Amino acid sequence: MKPLIYTFFIVTATLLVFASCQEKAKKISAPSFNLDSARVEIEHQNEVFQAAFEKGDSVGLANLFTVDGKIMMAGAPAFVGREAITHLGAMFIKSKLKRAARTVDIWGGPEMIVEEGIVSLFDQTGKEVERAKYLEAWKQEDGQWRLFRDMWTTDLAPASK
Amino acid sequence: MKPLIYTFFIVTATLLVFASCQEKAKKISAPSFNLDSARVEIEHQNEVFQAAFEKGDSVGLANLFTVDGKIMMAGAPAFVGREAITHLGAMFIKSKLKRAARTVDIWGGPEMIVEEGIVSLFDQTGKEVERAKYLEAWKQEDGQWRLFRDMWTTDLAPASK
Repeated sequence: MKPLIYTFFIVTATLLVFASCQEKAKKISAPSFNLDSARVEIEHQNEVFQAAFEKGDSVGLANLFTVDGKIMMAGAPAFVGREAITHLGAMFIKSKLKRAARTVDIWGGPEMIVEEGIVSLFDQTGKEVERAKYLEAWKQEDGQWRLFRDMWTTDLAPASK
Repeated sequence: MKPLIYTFFIVTATLLVFASCQEKAKKISAPSFNLDSARVEIEHQNEVFQAAFEKGDSVGLANLFTVDGKIMMAGAPAFVGREAITHLGAMFIKSKLKRAARTVDIWGGPEMIVEEGIVSLFDQTGKEVERAKYLEAWKQEDGQWRLFRDMWTTDLAPASK
């Protein structure tokens, strides 16, 4: 019987080693990241952004940013943090301009995603008064992709504005 | 003798399973990425950029960009690709302005790195004529970190320019 017990012991050990290796492989590959899933989540956040803009909800806009988020627009130093972003959002909302934005593409990984897009603003007659390209850096905070950095530049030459 | 051979077989199988698991764990964790090493490489690329600017080497500037790189400055649609970037670089070089830039921080992973920084331009009397914040997206191409997207916005209010 002795060799049989010995064999049983070795088989058990083999299974344990195998199981622990599988576990290790799983841990090393986690957290799994899928750019297409991130794209869907970011598209959703962009829809929430647009809806907040249309509703005039500047706090809702600011909550789409990380707590240390920055808007880096032209003509002023960066607006840093949700309070500053709320004030800026309120200014845009007050202007009564309509906004339309479109993602060109996103790239990146679990640490950070970069989005390139285009955004236009229209006055109340429907005339396009601004056309800009934007770069946004998105970061995961509290399980959600949030805006970490947001910058845009006008396509329009100074004389045409 | 039979149980001993059996045992020997099982021990060998155990070692093979263990070795293959170790190999698997290694493969899953590769390629290794270290943000500090990337930071050093990107700082180096920024020094190469500054040197090219000072030498008046617009082709050298453009070669720091990926082949599909974009400069997304205000007042025009994006400059796309190395030829367009060479022309833009030549215009900046012709202006004879001095340039000083500083990285604020970088974030990201092996797929893409985001750099935030500040950049100033000075005229020949040493007066600061432009102060801007920038966002750059860096991507690995041919084993080097290269500029994939580059955007900056002036801190200065329109009236002060």
